[in-house]
Amino acid sequence: MDYRVIEELAIPNDSKMVLVVLDGIGGLAIPGREGTELHVARRPNLNLLARRGSCGLMDPIMPGVTPGSGPAHFALFGYDPVENNIGRGVLEAAGIGMDLTPSDVAVRINFCTLGPDGRIVDRRAGRIPTEECERLCEKLQRAVNLGDGVEFICRAVKEHRAMILLRGEGLSGDLLDTDPQQVGLEPLPPRALVDTEESRRTIRVVGKLLTQAREILADEPKANFILLRGFAKNRHYRSLQERFKLRGYAIANYPMYRGVAKLIGMDLHPVTPDVRSQFEALREKYADYDYFFLHVKYTDSRGEDGDFDAKVRVIEEVDSYLPIVTALEPQVLVVTGDHSTPALLKAHSWHPVPVALVSPTARMDDVERFDEVSCAKGILGRFPAVELMALMLAHALRLKKFGA
Amino acid sequence: MDYRVIEELAIPNDSKMVLVVLDGIGGLAIPGREGTELHVARRPNLNLLARRGSCGLMDPIMPGVTPGSGPAHFALFGYDPVENNIGRGVLEAAGIGMDLTPSDVAVRINFCTLGPDGRIVDRRAGRIPTEECERLCEKLQRAVNLGDGVEFICRAVKEHRAMILLRGEGLSGDLLDTDPQQVGLEPLPPRALVDTEESRRTIRVVGKLLTQAREILADEPKANFILLRGFAKNRHYRSLQERFKLRGYAIANYPMYRGVAKLIGMDLHPVTPDVRSQFEALREKYADYDYFFLHVKYTDSRGEDGDFDAKVRVIEEVDSYLPIVTALEPQVLVVTGDHSTPALLKAHSWHPVPVALVSPTARMDDVERFDEVSCAKGILGRFPAVELMALMLAHALRLKKFGA
Repeated sequence: MDYRVIEELAIPNDSKMVLVVLDGIGGLAIPGREGTELHVARRPNLNLLARRGSCGLMDPIMPGVTPGSGPAHFALFGYDPVENNIGRGVLEAAGIGMDLTPSDVAVRINFCTLGPDGRIVDRRAGRIPTEECERLCEKLQRAVNLGDGVEFICRAVKEHRAMILLRGEGLSGDLLDTDPQQVGLEPLPPRALVDTEESRRTIRVVGKLLTQAREILADEPKANFILLRGFAKNRHYRSLQERFKLRGYAIANYPMYRGVAKLIGMDLHPVTPDVRSQFEALREKYADYDYFFLHVKYTDSRGEDGDFDAKVRVIEEVDSYLPIVTALEPQVLVVTGDHSTPALLKAHSWHPVPVALVSPTARMDDVERFDEVSCAKGILGRFPAVELMALMLAHALRLKKFGA
Repeated sequence: MDYRVIEELAIPNDSKMVLVVLDGIGGLAIPGREGTELHVARRPNLNLLARRGSCGLMDPIMPGVTPGSGPAHFALFGYDPVENNIGRGVLEAAGIGMDLTPSDVAVRINFCTLGPDGRIVDRRAGRIPTEECERLCEKLQRAVNLGDGVEFICRAVKEHRAMILLRGEGLSGDLLDTDPQQVGLEPLPPRALVDTEESRRTIRVVGKLLTQAREILADEPKANFILLRGFAKNRHYRSLQERFKLRGYAIANYPMYRGVAKLIGMDLHPVTPDVRSQFEALREKYADYDYFFLHVKYTDSRGEDGDFDAKVRVIEEVDSYLPIVTALEPQVLVVTGDHSTPALLKAHSWHPVPVALVSPTARMDDVERFDEVSCAKGILGRFPAVELMALMLAHALRLKKFGA
């Protein structure tokens, strides 16, 4: 897909586009049940969308490739998922609302407990409360001084987990975790994946950070050190506005998805208590944006749990909220997933996901049900997720004619 | 689609290939009718082709992209439509039979009427008759002298419309229209889209042309000046013969389509009075060529009019002529469109178009009807139009085996 063409054709208008992502929606049959989680779910509203719209089956990245959440969502937003593959650290940092510069290196940290011999006693420092984590992050933030033109920014996430940014020129994101993944061992020293001038500089900076952290935290009873993992360097992303003339709004409750949305310039809705309030947020903010991304996490979570029936219940719950969206009559409404998470596999999978695209400019095919097998026979055929944005823009009449 | 491979494999043989293009054939349902224009049309012969052949759904350029006629036809002939996107001026100049060199700049002109104050009184010079236009073009042709190694070639098109070629080295096609699109204003001076040495040279040449035209036409009562639009520079195209070993013949009545066909080396059938005579022309010329392009314009025209029923009638008319082609038993017969022009939208659209490919070497699928929804389930699946030529060549046994 040559998105340079699409970007040259993109024009603004007054239409509204809504993308509802049921994370990990695609499934597989399990013994004793008729079909996948979708087949089994009572889903009158999803089926109504399938009947009213154009259906298809979408490969998250390319056939056979199981995606992480990052690339899967970049693709849904029209960003090449291979080109735009980025470390989890950056996505989570953006997702918890940290403002990153394009050259920042983000690192996930765990507070941990070291014994008197310097070996790890508890990799999670007894899962300290989040308020405790906040106090420790402020303590580090006040005392750490990396010098050498490198700024240190620290933010608590949850319990023993926090996030840091290393801000400065010439830093690398190609460092390995210092967490040995096992108690009884010493934390690993900072090491690089590849030996470059930048990685050597970053090893020096991180070494200094670890030395300082050990001193600063020495008097803490539990959280007396930090383990670093998920080093990732940010980069510049052209925004949805720049590329497609879209003001985007993300209604997503988990950091990863908030992170991707933020990196490409969407505004983020505050975290909501439940799925229903996500749909209500869409209604409240409907006048203010062009493109809405509503992300439901729990289909994926229950799939990862291997709990077929619980995933079915999440689908049924989301189905019941869909009339809130359809009542708004967006020019383009797409319901789909970012990938499959079959309960059978308890993990993400490569299987393509069903898509229903509803619009006054969409062709109605004869698909009557929203599931993997029915949608495979739809008029959209099978296509890679990265093409979805162009299809949505086209149906919203937001793409000019190409050529004379 | 890597056409270098296809070109290396192409071999000549005695087979005949026929491509029937119903311009803008794809449609959308309108309220109160069951399905698209194709669904509604009585189309026994189209359905027979769908039953006998392999069916599919074809994206003109790429998903979501609405093409102009130029790129849509380049794709149908196996030319990358993005690489080969070219200005309308060139296509129309070629289409009215002007012989272009690869470095010519083509410009569409309107004769117009200026008032004594130099402002435009009539942008179409009262729609002077075509013979009058021919006289004025001859007058310009005799008197204009651009010097500087630039040749001026002028040809009447219809009523107030004509075409000029600027032939010389180092000219640019990136100039803006001089037509301000409004009466009461002065014509705009020549300006460039981008400032380059070539565009500055072209501005000087065009400035000279406008000065001379004003003098030459000063004594004309109506057509006393010209407005320039659609500047476009030609380029070199490798021919169907060079690329695919095909002698091509185009039976098309409108300049744009004749233009594309001519640029890639097809011979052009003289303009015919109606659609039936286009099919008869195919029969007459059948012995002389390998590849026939038969272009029916009116499906698109009625779609652009927003006249659903009139478009249905054009489909039914074309359907009635199809036995003329099938009686010839070409090795490969493809019926399809260059893009959709749903009456609902009164414009070209991005929706993919149905394809039926009939050949003794084609797999028969179970598609029974020629329409968008039925063909979507065909054995050709969904594919971009640029792949069609390779499919046609293959079914004509005109591609050697690739590799050992």
